[in-house]
Amino acid sequence: MKYADAGVNIAVADDAKQRIRHHASRTFTPGVLGGIGSFGALFALDRKKWKEPVLVSSADGVGTKLKVAMAMGVHSTVGADLVNHCINDILVQGAEPLFFLDYLAMGKLDPQVVEQLVEGMSRSCRKAGCALIGGETAEMPGFYSPGEYDLAGFIVGAVERKKLLTGKSVQPGDTLIALPSAGLHTNGYSLARKLVFEVAKLKPDAYVAEVGNKIGAELLKPHLCYAPALKNIIARRWVSALAHITGGGIPGNLPRVN
Amino acid sequence: MKYADAGVNIAVADDAKQRIRHHASRTFTPGVLGGIGSFGALFALDRKKWKEPVLVSSADGVGTKLKVAMAMGVHSTVGADLVNHCINDILVQGAEPLFFLDYLAMGKLDPQVVEQLVEGMSRSCRKAGCALIGGETAEMPGFYSPGEYDLAGFIVGAVERKKLLTGKSVQPGDTLIALPSAGLHTNGYSLARKLVFEVAKLKPDAYVAEVGNKIGAELLKPHLCYAPALKNIIARRWVSALAHITGGGIPGNLPRVN
Repeated sequence: MKYADAGVNIAVADDAKQRIRHHASRTFTPGVLGGIGSFGALFALDRKKWKEPVLVSSADGVGTKLKVAMAMGVHSTVGADLVNHCINDILVQGAEPLFFLDYLAMGKLDPQVVEQLVEGMSRSCRKAGCALIGGETAEMPGFYSPGEYDLAGFIVGAVERKKLLTGKSVQPGDTLIALPSAGLHTNGYSLARKLVFEVAKLKPDAYVAEVGNKIGAELLKPHLCYAPALKNIIARRWVSALAHITGGGIPGNLPRVN
Repeated sequence: MKYADAGVNIAVADDAKQRIRHHASRTFTPGVLGGIGSFGALFALDRKKWKEPVLVSSADGVGTKLKVAMAMGVHSTVGADLVNHCINDILVQGAEPLFFLDYLAMGKLDPQVVEQLVEGMSRSCRKAGCALIGGETAEMPGFYSPGEYDLAGFIVGAVERKKLLTGKSVQPGDTLIALPSAGLHTNGYSLARKLVFEVAKLKPDAYVAEVGNKIGAELLKPHLCYAPALKNIIARRWVSALAHITGGGIPGNLPRVN
Protein backbone atom coordinates (compact mmCIF):
# COMPACT_ATOMS: atom_id res chain seq x y z
CA MET A 1 0.00 0.00 0.00
CA LYS A 2 1.21 3.48 -0.91
CA TYR A 3 0.45 6.94 0.46
CA ALA A 4 -1.87 7.59 -2.47
CA ASP A 5 -4.00 4.60 -1.45
CA ALA A 6 -4.52 6.24 1.95
CA GLY A 7 -5.68 9.44 0.25
CA VAL A 8 -2.43 11.43 0.49
CA ASN A 9 -1.00 12.57 -2.84
CA ILE A 10 2.54 13.91 -2.51
CA ALA A 11 2.74 15.11 -6.17
CA VAL A 12 -0.32 17.30 -5.64
CA ALA A 13 1.30 18.57 -2.45
CA ASP A 14 4.35 19.63 -4.45
CA ASP A 15 2.10 21.50 -6.92
CA ALA A 16 0.45 23.32 -4.01
CA LYS A 17 3.86 24.19 -2.56
CA GLN A 18 4.98 25.81 -5.80
CA ARG A 19 1.89 28.02 -5.85
CA ILE A 20 2.37 28.96 -2.19
CA ARG A 21 6.02 29.80 -2.78
CA HIS A 22 5.13 32.18 -5.61
CA HIS A 23 2.60 34.20 -3.63
CA ALA A 24 4.56 34.10 -0.39
CA SER A 25 7.79 35.31 -1.96
CA ARG A 26 6.03 38.45 -3.21
CA THR A 27 5.50 39.51 0.42
CA PHE A 28 9.13 39.25 1.46
CA THR A 29 10.54 42.26 3.28
CA PRO A 30 14.25 42.93 3.92
CA GLY A 31 14.09 41.02 7.22
CA VAL A 32 13.36 37.70 5.54
CA LEU A 33 16.39 35.43 5.21
CA GLY A 34 16.25 32.43 2.92
CA GLY A 35 13.13 31.25 1.18
CA ILE A 36 10.10 29.12 1.83
CA GLY A 37 10.78 25.48 2.55
CA SER A 38 13.46 25.38 5.20
CA PHE A 39 12.47 23.85 8.52
CA GLY A 40 11.95 27.15 10.27
CA ALA A 41 11.29 30.50 8.60
CA LEU A 42 13.97 33.11 9.23
CA PHE A 43 13.41 36.76 10.05
CA ALA A 44 16.29 39.01 11.10
CA LEU A 45 15.23 41.69 13.54
CA ASP A 46 16.66 45.05 12.45
CA ARG A 47 18.82 46.01 15.38
CA LYS A 48 19.18 49.57 14.17
CA LYS A 49 15.44 50.03 14.17
CA TRP A 50 14.57 48.20 17.37
CA LYS A 51 16.13 49.30 20.65
CA GLU A 52 14.04 47.37 23.14
CA PRO A 53 11.65 45.28 21.08
CA VAL A 54 8.62 43.55 22.47
CA LEU A 55 7.37 40.82 20.17
CA VAL A 56 3.59 40.80 19.93
CA SER A 57 2.01 37.63 18.58
CA SER A 58 -1.46 36.32 17.92
CA ALA A 59 -3.14 33.17 16.62
CA ASP A 60 -6.49 33.32 14.92
CA GLY A 61 -8.86 31.35 12.79
CA VAL A 62 -11.56 32.37 10.36
CA GLY A 63 -14.24 30.27 12.04
CA THR A 64 -17.33 29.07 10.29
CA LYS A 65 -17.18 31.96 7.79
CA LEU A 66 -15.16 29.37 5.87
CA LYS A 67 -18.42 27.49 5.20
CA VAL A 68 -19.69 30.52 3.31
CA ALA A 69 -16.47 30.67 1.28
CA MET A 70 -16.87 26.99 0.39
CA ALA A 71 -20.52 27.44 -0.56
CA MET A 72 -19.62 30.39 -2.81
CA GLY A 73 -16.42 28.82 -4.18
CA VAL A 74 -14.57 32.04 -3.30
CA HIS A 75 -11.50 31.61 -1.14
CA SER A 76 -9.22 34.63 -1.46
CA THR A 77 -11.40 36.77 0.80
CA VAL A 78 -11.08 34.44 3.80
CA GLY A 79 -7.32 34.51 3.29
CA ALA A 80 -7.53 38.29 3.60
CA ASP A 81 -9.82 37.94 6.62
CA LEU A 82 -7.27 35.88 8.44
CA VAL A 83 -4.35 38.23 7.90
CA ASN A 84 -6.34 41.38 8.62
CA HIS A 85 -7.75 39.93 11.83
CA CYS A 86 -4.26 39.04 13.02
CA ILE A 87 -2.84 42.46 12.12
CA ASN A 88 -5.64 44.18 14.06
CA ASP A 89 -5.03 42.00 17.11
CA ILE A 90 -1.46 43.18 17.46
CA LEU A 91 -2.11 46.71 16.18
CA VAL A 92 -4.19 47.48 19.28
CA GLN A 93 -1.04 47.07 21.38
CA GLY A 94 0.87 49.38 19.09
CA ALA A 95 2.73 46.67 17.18
CA GLU A 96 3.60 46.70 13.53
CA PRO A 97 3.47 43.33 11.78
CA LEU A 98 6.74 41.59 10.91
CA PHE A 99 5.75 38.17 9.66
CA PHE A 100 2.86 35.75 9.28
CA LEU A 101 2.49 31.97 9.02
CA ASP A 102 -0.62 29.98 8.18
CA TYR A 103 -1.97 26.54 8.96
CA LEU A 104 -4.21 25.04 6.30
CA ALA A 105 -5.79 21.61 6.68
CA MET A 106 -7.80 20.13 3.82
CA GLY A 107 -9.64 16.87 3.30
CA LYS A 108 -8.29 16.60 -0.21
CA LEU A 109 -5.51 18.93 -1.21
CA ASP A 110 -6.80 21.20 -3.97
CA PRO A 111 -3.93 23.33 -5.32
CA GLN A 112 -6.32 25.86 -6.86
CA VAL A 113 -8.12 26.46 -3.58
CA VAL A 114 -4.77 26.62 -1.80
CA GLU A 115 -3.63 29.21 -4.30
CA GLN A 116 -6.74 31.37 -3.82
CA LEU A 117 -6.32 31.28 -0.06
CA VAL A 118 -2.63 32.12 -0.20
CA GLU A 119 -3.19 34.81 -2.82
CA GLY A 120 -5.66 36.49 -0.42
CA MET A 121 -3.21 36.21 2.45
CA SER A 122 -0.37 37.46 0.29
CA ARG A 123 -2.27 40.54 -0.86
CA SER A 124 -3.19 41.54 2.69
CA CYS A 125 0.33 40.87 3.88
CA ARG A 126 1.83 43.04 1.13
CA LYS A 127 -0.47 45.95 1.96
CA ALA A 128 0.67 45.82 5.56
CA GLY A 129 4.37 45.22 4.91
CA CYS A 130 4.09 41.85 6.62
CA ALA A 131 6.06 38.89 5.26
CA LEU A 132 4.22 35.62 4.69
CA ILE A 133 7.21 33.47 5.55
CA GLY A 134 5.91 30.03 6.25
CA GLY A 135 3.13 27.71 7.17
CA GLU A 136 1.85 24.20 7.18
CA THR A 137 -0.44 22.72 4.55
CA ALA A 138 -1.82 19.38 5.66
CA GLU A 139 -3.89 16.89 3.73
CA MET A 140 -6.09 15.14 6.27
CA PRO A 141 -8.44 12.65 4.62
CA GLY A 142 -11.13 11.49 7.00
CA PHE A 143 -10.88 14.75 8.96
CA TYR A 144 -12.31 17.09 6.41
CA SER A 145 -14.57 16.18 3.50
CA PRO A 146 -13.29 16.87 -0.02
CA GLY A 147 -13.80 20.59 -0.62
CA GLU A 148 -13.65 21.43 3.08
CA TYR A 149 -10.76 22.91 5.00
CA ASP A 150 -9.80 24.79 8.11
CA LEU A 151 -7.45 27.74 8.18
CA ALA A 152 -5.54 29.43 10.99
CA GLY A 153 -2.97 32.17 11.07
CA PHE A 154 -0.16 33.28 13.32
CA ILE A 155 1.36 36.72 13.32
CA VAL A 156 4.41 38.24 14.97
CA GLY A 157 4.90 41.98 15.19
CA ALA A 158 7.03 44.28 17.25
CA VAL A 159 6.72 47.46 19.26
CA GLU A 160 9.26 49.43 21.27
CA ARG A 161 8.71 48.61 24.91
CA LYS A 162 8.12 52.29 25.76
CA LYS A 163 5.51 52.58 23.03
CA LEU A 164 3.52 49.53 24.02
CA LEU A 165 -0.14 50.54 24.14
CA THR A 166 -1.77 49.52 27.41
CA GLY A 167 -4.78 50.92 29.20
CA LYS A 168 -2.67 52.59 31.89
CA SER A 169 -3.09 56.14 30.67
CA VAL A 170 -6.84 55.83 30.07
CA GLN A 171 -8.74 58.36 32.24
CA PRO A 172 -12.37 59.18 32.97
CA GLY A 173 -13.49 61.73 30.42
CA ASP A 174 -11.44 60.24 27.57
CA THR A 175 -13.25 60.04 24.27
CA LEU A 176 -14.06 56.59 22.94
CA ILE A 177 -14.15 56.39 19.15
CA ALA A 178 -15.52 53.38 17.28
CA LEU A 179 -14.42 52.59 13.75
CA PRO A 180 -16.98 50.83 11.55
CA SER A 181 -16.60 47.24 10.42
CA ALA A 182 -17.23 46.00 6.90
CA GLY A 183 -19.85 43.57 8.16
CA LEU A 184 -19.55 40.65 10.57
CA HIS A 185 -15.81 40.35 9.95
CA THR A 186 -15.00 36.86 11.29
CA ASN A 187 -17.29 36.47 14.26
CA GLY A 188 -20.84 35.32 14.77
CA TYR A 189 -20.99 33.15 11.67
CA SER A 190 -22.43 30.06 13.34
CA LEU A 191 -25.41 32.15 14.44
CA ALA A 192 -25.60 34.16 11.20
CA ARG A 193 -25.45 31.08 9.00
CA LYS A 194 -28.17 29.40 11.03
CA LEU A 195 -30.42 32.45 10.70
CA VAL A 196 -29.71 33.09 7.01
CA PHE A 197 -29.43 29.60 5.60
CA GLU A 198 -31.59 27.53 7.99
CA VAL A 199 -34.25 29.85 9.42
CA ALA A 200 -34.65 32.18 6.41
CA LYS A 201 -33.72 29.30 4.07
CA LEU A 202 -31.79 31.55 1.67
CA LYS A 203 -29.37 30.12 -0.88
CA PRO A 204 -25.84 31.61 -0.73
CA ASP A 205 -26.29 33.28 -4.13
CA ALA A 206 -29.76 34.71 -3.37
CA TYR A 207 -29.90 38.48 -3.96
CA VAL A 208 -31.14 40.34 -0.89
CA ALA A 209 -32.48 43.82 -1.68
CA GLU A 210 -31.98 45.12 1.89
CA VAL A 211 -28.22 44.69 1.63
CA GLY A 212 -28.05 45.25 -2.14
CA ASN A 213 -25.96 42.13 -2.62
CA LYS A 214 -26.00 38.37 -2.85
CA ILE A 215 -26.22 37.18 0.73
CA GLY A 216 -23.16 34.95 0.34
CA ALA A 217 -21.06 37.78 -1.07
CA GLU A 218 -22.27 40.12 1.67
CA LEU A 219 -21.30 37.59 4.34
CA LEU A 220 -17.88 37.16 2.73
CA LYS A 221 -16.89 40.83 2.91
CA PRO A 222 -13.37 40.73 4.35
CA HIS A 223 -12.38 41.77 7.80
CA LEU A 224 -11.08 45.34 7.53
CA CYS A 225 -7.45 45.98 8.35
CA TYR A 226 -7.36 49.03 10.61
CA ALA A 227 -3.63 49.62 10.26
CA PRO A 228 -3.89 52.24 7.47
CA ALA A 229 -6.42 54.26 9.51
CA LEU A 230 -4.53 53.99 12.78
CA LYS A 231 -0.80 53.67 12.29
CA ASN A 232 -0.01 57.38 12.03
CA ILE A 233 -2.29 58.14 14.96
CA ILE A 234 -0.55 55.46 17.02
CA ALA A 235 2.91 56.70 15.99
CA ARG A 236 1.97 60.24 17.13
CA ARG A 237 0.74 58.78 20.43
CA TRP A 238 -2.69 60.31 20.03
CA VAL A 239 -4.48 57.26 21.43
CA SER A 240 -4.33 55.92 24.98
CA ALA A 241 -5.65 52.47 24.22
CA LEU A 242 -7.28 50.42 21.48
CA ALA A 243 -9.53 47.37 21.50
CA HIS A 244 -10.27 44.99 18.65
CA ILE A 245 -13.96 44.11 18.90
CA THR A 246 -14.28 40.47 17.87
CA GLY A 247 -16.09 37.50 19.48
CA GLY A 248 -17.64 38.60 22.78
CA GLY A 249 -18.38 42.05 21.36
CA ILE A 250 -17.79 45.28 23.30
CA PRO A 251 -18.40 43.78 26.78
CA GLY A 252 -15.97 40.95 26.07
CA ASN A 253 -13.24 43.00 24.44
CA LEU A 254 -12.94 46.40 26.12
CA PRO A 255 -11.80 44.69 29.39
CA ARG A 256 -8.94 43.04 27.45
CA VAL A 257 -7.24 46.44 27.34
CA ASN A 258 -4.92 46.18 30.31
CA MET B 1 -32.13 33.18 18.66
CA LYS B 2 -29.06 33.15 20.89
CA TYR B 3 -25.50 31.93 20.37
CA ALA B 4 -26.29 28.78 22.34
CA ASP B 5 -29.02 27.90 19.86
CA ALA B 6 -26.40 27.97 17.10
CA GLY B 7 -24.22 25.57 19.09
CA VAL B 8 -21.78 28.09 20.57
CA ASN B 9 -21.69 28.18 24.37
CA ILE B 10 -19.78 31.19 25.69
CA ALA B 11 -19.93 30.03 29.37
CA VAL B 12 -18.21 26.78 28.44
CA ALA B 13 -15.65 28.81 26.51
CA ASP B 14 -14.90 30.80 29.67
CA ASP B 15 -14.40 27.55 31.62
CA ALA B 16 -11.97 26.34 28.97
CA LYS B 17 -10.12 29.67 29.07
CA GLN B 18 -9.60 29.37 32.84
CA ARG B 19 -8.05 25.93 32.40
CA ILE B 20 -5.82 27.14 29.57
CA ARG B 21 -4.70 30.14 31.62
CA HIS B 22 -3.64 27.88 34.50
CA HIS B 23 -1.47 25.57 32.41
CA ALA B 24 -0.10 28.32 30.19
CA SER B 25 0.97 30.55 33.06
CA ARG B 26 3.13 27.74 34.44
CA THR B 27 5.30 27.99 31.32
CA PHE B 28 6.00 31.71 31.59
CA THR B 29 9.63 32.72 31.32
CA PRO B 30 11.07 36.15 32.22
CA GLY B 31 10.45 37.44 28.68
CA VAL B 32 6.67 37.17 29.00
CA LEU B 33 4.94 40.48 29.71
CA GLY B 34 1.32 40.50 30.84
CA GLY B 35 -0.85 37.42 30.98
CA ILE B 36 -3.06 35.36 28.75
CA GLY B 37 -6.08 37.14 27.33
CA SER B 38 -4.82 40.39 25.87
CA PHE B 39 -5.21 40.82 22.12
CA GLY B 40 -1.62 39.96 21.31
CA ALA B 41 0.77 38.00 23.50
CA LEU B 42 3.83 39.97 24.62
CA PHE B 43 7.39 38.72 24.72
CA ALA B 44 10.30 41.07 25.42
CA LEU B 45 13.47 40.05 23.64
CA ASP B 46 16.40 40.18 26.05
CA ARG B 47 18.64 42.79 24.46
CA LYS B 48 21.59 41.83 26.64
CA LYS B 49 21.42 38.25 25.45
CA TRP B 50 20.70 38.83 21.75
CA LYS B 51 23.12 40.91 19.71
CA GLU B 52 21.89 40.17 16.20
CA PRO B 53 18.85 37.95 16.64
CA VAL B 54 17.29 35.98 13.84
CA LEU B 55 13.75 34.90 14.70
CA VAL B 56 13.06 31.35 13.58
CA SER B 57 9.42 30.36 13.35
CA SER B 58 7.44 27.31 12.35
CA ALA B 59 3.81 26.25 12.05
CA ASP B 60 2.81 22.63 12.42
CA GLY B 61 -0.12 20.36 12.92
CA VAL B 62 -0.46 16.92 14.42
CA GLY B 63 -2.20 15.46 11.39
CA THR B 64 -4.43 12.45 11.55
CA LYS B 65 -2.62 11.14 14.63
CA LEU B 66 -5.37 13.14 16.33
CA LYS B 67 -7.85 10.44 15.25
CA VAL B 68 -5.90 7.92 17.34
CA ALA B 69 -5.98 10.29 20.33
CA MET B 70 -9.75 10.65 19.95
CA ALA B 71 -10.23 6.88 19.64
CA MET B 72 -8.17 6.30 22.80
CA GLY B 73 -9.60 9.28 24.71
CA VAL B 74 -6.03 10.38 25.47
CA HIS B 75 -5.20 13.94 24.50
CA SER B 76 -2.16 15.16 26.45
CA THR B 77 0.28 13.22 24.26
CA VAL B 78 -0.78 14.96 21.04
CA GLY B 79 -0.31 18.28 22.84
CA ALA B 80 3.26 17.18 23.55
CA ASP B 81 3.65 16.01 19.93
CA LEU B 82 2.79 19.43 18.63
CA VAL B 83 5.22 21.35 20.82
CA ASN B 84 8.07 18.88 20.34
CA HIS B 85 7.63 18.87 16.57
CA CYS B 86 7.79 22.65 16.50
CA ILE B 87 10.84 22.79 18.76
CA ASN B 88 12.66 20.31 16.51
CA ASP B 89 11.82 22.30 13.39
CA ILE B 90 13.61 25.40 14.68
CA LEU B 91 16.32 23.49 16.57
CA VAL B 92 17.77 22.25 13.28
CA GLN B 93 18.64 25.83 12.41
CA GLY B 94 20.28 26.36 15.79
CA ALA B 95 17.39 28.26 17.39
CA GLU B 96 16.26 28.01 20.96
CA PRO B 97 12.52 28.29 21.54
CA LEU B 98 11.12 31.53 22.97
CA PHE B 99 7.36 31.17 22.79
CA PHE B 100 4.54 29.03 21.42
CA LEU B 101 0.91 29.61 20.46
CA ASP B 102 -1.71 27.04 19.55
CA TYR B 103 -4.83 26.91 17.42
CA LEU B 104 -7.49 24.48 18.59
CA ALA B 105 -10.77 24.05 16.72
CA MET B 106 -13.46 21.77 18.14
CA GLY B 107 -16.94 20.79 17.05
CA LYS B 108 -18.22 21.11 20.59
CA LEU B 109 -15.96 22.77 23.11
CA ASP B 110 -15.05 20.23 25.77
CA PRO B 111 -13.11 21.94 28.58
CA GLN B 112 -11.70 18.63 29.81
CA VAL B 113 -10.26 17.74 26.42
CA VAL B 114 -8.96 21.29 26.05
CA GLU B 115 -7.28 20.96 29.43
CA GLN B 116 -5.61 17.65 28.50
CA LEU B 117 -4.29 19.12 25.26
CA VAL B 118 -3.00 22.26 26.92
CA GLU B 119 -1.53 20.28 29.82
CA GLY B 120 0.48 18.25 27.30
CA MET B 121 1.62 21.39 25.51
CA SER B 122 2.46 23.08 28.79
CA ARG B 123 4.58 20.17 30.01
CA SER B 124 6.63 20.06 26.80
CA CYS B 125 6.98 23.84 26.78
CA ARG B 126 8.24 23.86 30.39
CA LYS B 127 10.84 21.20 29.66
CA ALA B 128 12.18 23.31 26.80
CA GLY B 129 11.99 26.69 28.52
CA CYS B 130 9.43 27.81 25.96
CA ALA B 131 6.53 30.03 27.02
CA LEU B 132 3.02 29.03 25.97
CA ILE B 133 1.79 32.61 25.65
CA GLY B 134 -1.34 32.51 23.59
CA GLY B 135 -3.57 30.81 21.13
CA GLU B 136 -7.02 30.54 19.70
CA THR B 137 -9.67 28.09 20.82
CA ALA B 138 -12.58 28.01 18.41
CA GLU B 139 -15.88 26.22 18.70
CA MET B 140 -16.94 25.35 15.16
CA PRO B 141 -20.19 23.38 15.10
CA GLY B 142 -20.85 21.87 11.70
CA PHE B 143 -17.12 21.79 10.97
CA TYR B 144 -16.07 19.14 13.40
CA SER B 145 -18.28 16.46 14.95
CA PRO B 146 -18.67 16.49 18.73
CA GLY B 147 -15.53 14.86 20.15
CA GLU B 148 -13.44 15.82 17.11
CA TYR B 149 -10.95 18.64 16.84
CA ASP B 150 -7.97 19.91 14.93
CA LEU B 151 -4.86 21.32 16.53
CA ALA B 152 -2.01 23.41 15.16
CA GLY B 153 0.96 25.10 16.76
CA PHE B 154 3.21 27.99 16.07
CA ILE B 155 6.62 28.52 17.57
CA VAL B 156 9.08 31.39 17.58
CA GLY B 157 12.69 30.94 18.61
CA ALA B 158 15.87 32.87 18.16
CA VAL B 159 19.46 32.30 17.13
CA GLU B 160 22.37 34.68 16.79
CA ARG B 161 22.83 35.41 13.11
CA LYS B 162 26.42 34.14 13.18
CA LYS B 163 25.33 30.89 14.78
CA LEU B 164 22.55 30.12 12.33
CA LEU B 165 22.94 26.51 11.22
CA THR B 166 22.90 26.19 7.46
CA GLY B 167 24.35 23.55 5.20
CA LYS B 168 27.16 25.81 3.99
CA SER B 169 29.94 24.15 5.92
CA VAL B 170 28.87 20.60 5.05
CA GLN B 171 31.66 18.78 3.17
CA PRO B 172 32.11 15.44 1.46
CA GLY B 173 33.39 13.00 4.05
CA ASP B 174 31.35 14.49 6.91
CA THR B 175 29.72 11.95 9.18
CA LEU B 176 25.93 11.75 9.11
CA ILE B 177 24.39 10.66 12.41
CA ALA B 178 20.74 9.67 12.74
CA LEU B 179 18.95 9.90 16.07
CA PRO B 180 16.14 7.39 16.62
CA SER B 181 12.49 8.37 16.76
CA ALA B 182 10.01 7.12 19.35
CA GLY B 183 7.81 5.71 16.59
CA LEU B 184 6.00 7.43 13.74
CA HIS B 185 6.09 10.78 15.53
CA THR B 186 3.46 12.83 13.66
CA ASN B 187 3.78 11.65 10.08
CA GLY B 188 2.35 8.82 8.07
CA TYR B 189 -0.76 8.38 10.17
CA SER B 190 -3.26 8.34 7.32
CA LEU B 191 -1.41 5.35 5.88
CA ALA B 192 -0.72 3.73 9.25
CA ARG B 193 -4.32 4.07 10.41
CA LYS B 194 -5.56 2.57 7.17
CA LEU B 195 -3.22 -0.41 7.53
CA VAL B 196 -3.83 -0.98 11.23
CA PHE B 197 -7.51 -0.19 11.61
CA GLU B 198 -8.90 -0.97 8.14
CA VAL B 199 -6.65 -3.62 6.58
CA ALA B 200 -5.63 -5.46 9.78
CA LYS B 201 -8.95 -4.51 11.40
CA LEU B 202 -7.42 -3.99 14.86
CA LYS B 203 -9.26 -2.10 17.58
CA PRO B 204 -7.28 0.81 19.09
CA ASP B 205 -7.01 -1.01 22.44
CA ALA B 206 -5.95 -4.36 20.94
CA TYR B 207 -2.71 -5.67 22.46
CA VAL B 208 -0.10 -6.42 19.80
CA ALA B 209 2.62 -8.79 21.01
CA GLU B 210 5.15 -7.68 18.35
CA VAL B 211 5.25 -4.15 19.80
CA GLY B 212 4.48 -5.21 23.39
CA ASN B 213 1.76 -2.60 23.68
CA LYS B 214 -1.81 -1.73 22.82
CA ILE B 215 -1.69 -0.60 19.20
CA GLY B 216 -3.42 2.71 20.01
CA ALA B 217 -0.96 3.50 22.81
CA GLU B 218 1.96 2.54 20.59
CA LEU B 219 0.72 4.86 17.84
CA LEU B 220 0.30 7.68 20.35
CA LYS B 221 3.90 7.68 21.57
CA PRO B 222 4.86 11.35 21.50
CA HIS B 223 7.19 12.97 19.05
CA LEU B 224 10.60 13.14 20.74
CA CYS B 225 12.03 16.55 21.48
CA TYR B 226 15.66 16.46 20.35
CA ALA B 227 16.67 19.67 22.13
CA PRO B 228 18.07 17.94 25.26
CA ALA B 229 20.24 15.65 23.12
CA LEU B 230 21.43 18.38 20.79
CA LYS B 231 21.55 21.78 22.42
CA ASN B 232 25.01 21.46 24.00
CA ILE B 233 26.39 19.97 20.80
CA ILE B 234 24.91 22.86 18.81
CA ALA B 235 26.25 25.45 21.30
CA ARG B 236 29.74 23.96 20.94
CA ARG B 237 29.35 24.12 17.15
CA TRP B 238 30.12 20.44 16.73
CA VAL B 239 27.52 19.98 14.00
CA SER B 240 27.55 21.46 10.50
CA ALA B 241 23.87 20.96 9.77
CA LEU B 242 20.79 19.22 11.06
CA ALA B 243 17.62 17.94 9.40
CA HIS B 244 14.31 17.09 11.03
CA ILE B 245 13.01 13.99 9.25
CA THR B 246 9.23 14.39 9.03
CA GLY B 247 6.78 13.94 6.12
CA GLY B 248 8.72 13.15 2.96
CA GLY B 249 11.29 11.15 4.93
CA ILE B 250 15.04 11.36 4.31
CA PRO B 251 14.78 12.18 0.55
CA GLY B 252 12.30 14.99 1.26
CA ASN B 253 14.04 16.51 4.24
CA LEU B 254 17.82 16.35 3.79
CA PRO B 255 17.56 18.77 0.80
CA ARG B 256 15.80 21.29 3.07
CA VAL B 257 19.17 21.96 4.72
CA ASN B 258 20.31 24.99 2.78
